[in-house]
Order: sequence, then structure tokens, then C-alpha cells
Amino acid sequence: MDKPATSNILSRIRVVLSHPSHPGNIGSVARAMKTMGLSRLVLVNPRSFPSPDALALASGATDLLDAAQVVSELDDALIGCTQVVALSARRRELTVPMHNPRELAPLLIERCQHGEEVALLFGTEMSGLSNDEVRRCNRVVSIPANPDYSSLNLAQAVQVIAYELRMAVDTDLSHLQEYHELATHDDVERLYVDLENTLVQIGFLDPDNPKRLMPRLRRLLGRGQLEKVEVDILRGILRATREGRR
Amino acid sequence: MDKPATSNILSRIRVVLSHPSHPGNIGSVARAMKTMGLSRLVLVNPRSFPSPDALALASGATDLLDAAQVVSELDDALIGCTQVVALSARRRELTVPMHNPRELAPLLIERCQHGEEVALLFGTEMSGLSNDEVRRCNRVVSIPANPDYSSLNLAQAVQVIAYELRMAVDTDLSHLQEYHELATHDDVERLYVDLENTLVQIGFLDPDNPKRLMPRLRRLLGRGQLEKVEVDILRGILRATREGRR
Repeated sequence: MDKPATSNILSRIRVVLSHPSHPGNIGSVARAMKTMGLSRLVLVNPRSFPSPDALALASGATDLLDAAQVVSELDDALIGCTQVVALSARRRELTVPMHNPRELAPLLIERCQHGEEVALLFGTEMSGLSNDEVRRCNRVVSIPANPDYSSLNLAQAVQVIAYELRMAVDTDLSHLQEYHELATHDDVERLYVDLENTLVQIGFLDPDNPKRLMPRLRRLLGRGQLEKVEVDILRGILRATREGRR
Repeated sequence: MDKPATSNILSRIRVVLSHPSHPGNIGSVARAMKTMGLSRLVLVNPRSFPSPDALALASGATDLLDAAQVVSELDDALIGCTQVVALSARRRELTVPMHNPRELAPLLIERCQHGEEVALLFGTEMSGLSNDEVRRCNRVVSIPANPDYSSLNLAQAVQVIAYELRMAVDTDLSHLQEYHELATHDDVERLYVDLENTLVQIGFLDPDNPKRLMPRLRRLLGRGQLEKVEVDILRGILRATREGRR
């Protein structure tokens, strides 16, 4: 389950697709949204919806398709929103200032935190939003891209914007990571003593000419944080090395 | 054309797909890569490649498919790389520390700037990378996602990682934006004088009880940067208002 704080904020964001022509894209958009914790999909004059293609590509996100709102007028999709964000991949005249998604995401999230609603508007696959549609927005976002090939697939663009919004709320990965007990300073120092003694015993370290060997090994082992289990393993290896030598 | 600095850096990154099962995804991956300026695709034991599905979904990125390297052993895909990054959506034991893409991207780009090669490794659609494959990587990245639904479509995951890498190199949107000459301080102050006089003339502002009207209007007009053309338009409107009143 997403943390309540996270889902409360993200629930204020609606993804609006204007005249989507490929039903498969609608399904892919739903999937992209759900992976990032978004849930509200609005379709303005979809060419074909509902559709088995949409269901197929939605994978486990068909609940978003079931809940999707379908309207015939763009303004009906934007009711109640203080932020209306147009996604544009091309140069346009006389529009509000353009931002990249990373600049805009914290601002949009802040509005959500105030209980305001945000609409993200994506245009039809072939040509994007019309100038008239863009003019009805109060923000324009563009995804920095290869100038020679800047048009992301519709669902990919939704994925990137949704990802930026989530990253502005919740970057937590702790549920995917294990806890490992770390070695303490004294655990590690005992290891280095063992290590030095062993290296001398096997003739690799000359105590009269140690050069920088121990500092280099400290640097190697200290680069990541050593864990207790790892120190035990290393000391076991060193012990076996010394005993093997007798 | 991407700036030479940008394409030089990004050319050191290879996207490696291990056992991709849907040829359409290979095409979508190529498209996602090209939008972000990546070009090097490597396929380890693809189920079906080349394929018309891949070509169809690659859209304008078929050149990446033509140049794609196909190998049968994962290690052959990773030759020469100092950074081998596994994308993982699940919890795994005993792996190198996990990062989100935003933490990792600057580090990877820095290595590219030193002329080093980076491999981004993505697993098969159904189950992702095997534990054995992940262990061969020296970095693990996970895309923060909805804990209940964290598995992005393969091409979507590539799009997000590629986007993060590009954002670490080049966020330039200037080629999409127009230049508009801004109004100077004195242009704007003349406007406010006009505005105040007009509001008094039409009886909306009482000079004996101005309240906070002019500060509020200054705040409204000053929120965005006024442009010269806009100041001219506003002064024209005010002039017409005053002349209409006589």
C-alpha cells in the first residue's frame, strides 16, 4: 500500500488524454499511471474506448480504465483544477513559460498538498495538443529530449511525468532493501590488525618497508561500509591463511 | 542535432536487454532510447529478433535496431564496462546497495565523462533479471513506484532511466522557447502611473481611500515578468478607457 500521505497527494492529479487515437496507448497510460500511484484518467473524445486493446495493455491496471471519465469537451475535463499543465514537444508561440518536468513537479505537488487539483494534458498521438488546447493551460511542460527525435510515445511521456511527480513526493525504496548489521569501528580495527599480521606472516608485507599497502587496503575495504558478517568472513579467511602456513 | 558534448557522453551508455520475449518491446525500447539520445542496444538471447513488430514500434528509431548487437552470453554484452547497472523491481538478497535513478545518474555520467563505458541491464518481461544476472552487476537501481504495483513495462523502465541520464547531462529546452523582449523597470513604472490615473478617472480608485488596490495590482502584474509588447498593450487599453470616458 502506498503511504496515505503519498496517495492523498497523488489522488489530486488527473491525467487527461485529448483525442487518443490508439486504444492500446490508453491501456499503457493506465499502467504507467498506476506504477507511479496515480489513479485518475480522463479521456476527451477517445477514438475507441472501451476497447480490448486498452484492457490488454493495461495489464494489472484495468481498475483505472474502469474508473476513467469520458468527456466530449476538454473544458469538462479541467473543471476544478487550479493547475492545467500542457505537455508539448514543439515550439509554440505566445504561451505561458515552459518548464522541464523536474522544475514543475515540486510546484504541482505543493498545490496538491493545499488540496488543489492538477490536470496533466496530453494531446493526440500524431500531432500532440492543438494550439487552442495549449492556450487553455496555465503551464507548459516539455521533456528534454534529442532535438532530432523528441517525440516520446504517449504512454512513455505519461510515464516520465508521473515518475517526476512521484519522485517529488516519495523516493522511498526501503521496502526493497534488506537490513544488514554494520561492523563497528573496533570490529574493523581488529580486522586490520589481523590483516596486517597475516600479510607479514605470508611474506607479502615487509614490516621494515611497508610502503602504502595498509593504507591502500584500508581504502579498498573502507569504501563501502563493512558489515559484521563480512568482517567475520574476512577474519576467518585470514585465520585459515595463517594456520595453513604453519 | 544533439550537442557534441551530450552525444559523446551518452554514446558511452549501452542498454542491454536480457532475454526479451516480446519483439514489440524491443522496438519501443529503441524509440525510448533515441528520444533521450542513447543509441547502443544489445540483446542477449532475444526470443524473436529481427521482427516486424520491433520495426513497427520503433517508429523513427529503426536505425538503433539495425545497429543492435545480438549476443548469446550476458558477459559478452558487458565487455569493457566499468559500470554494470541492474534494474530491479524486487527485493533481493546479498546485492550491492540499491539506488534510485536520480542518485545514480550523475555518477554514471561522470564515469562516461572519463571515457568509461556503462551498461544498463534490463531483465526478461515476466520476471526481470535472475539473481545470478544481478550478482554480475556492480550497481542496482530501482525506480520508486507504487508498492502494490511496481512493475513498469520494460520500455517504460528504459524510458525513465534514459530520461534521468539525459537530465544529468542536458536539460536544455531553449530551442523550443521564443525570445520576448522584457519590459524595463521604467516601462513598468510608467504603466502603473497610467493604471492608477485611469482607475481614479473611472471612479474605481478613490484617491482619498486607496486601500491596497495598487499594491495588489502590482503583485498581479509583477508575478510574471512583463514583456515590452504587453506593457504597450496594457497602456493602449488604459488610454482607450480614458478616452472612451470623455
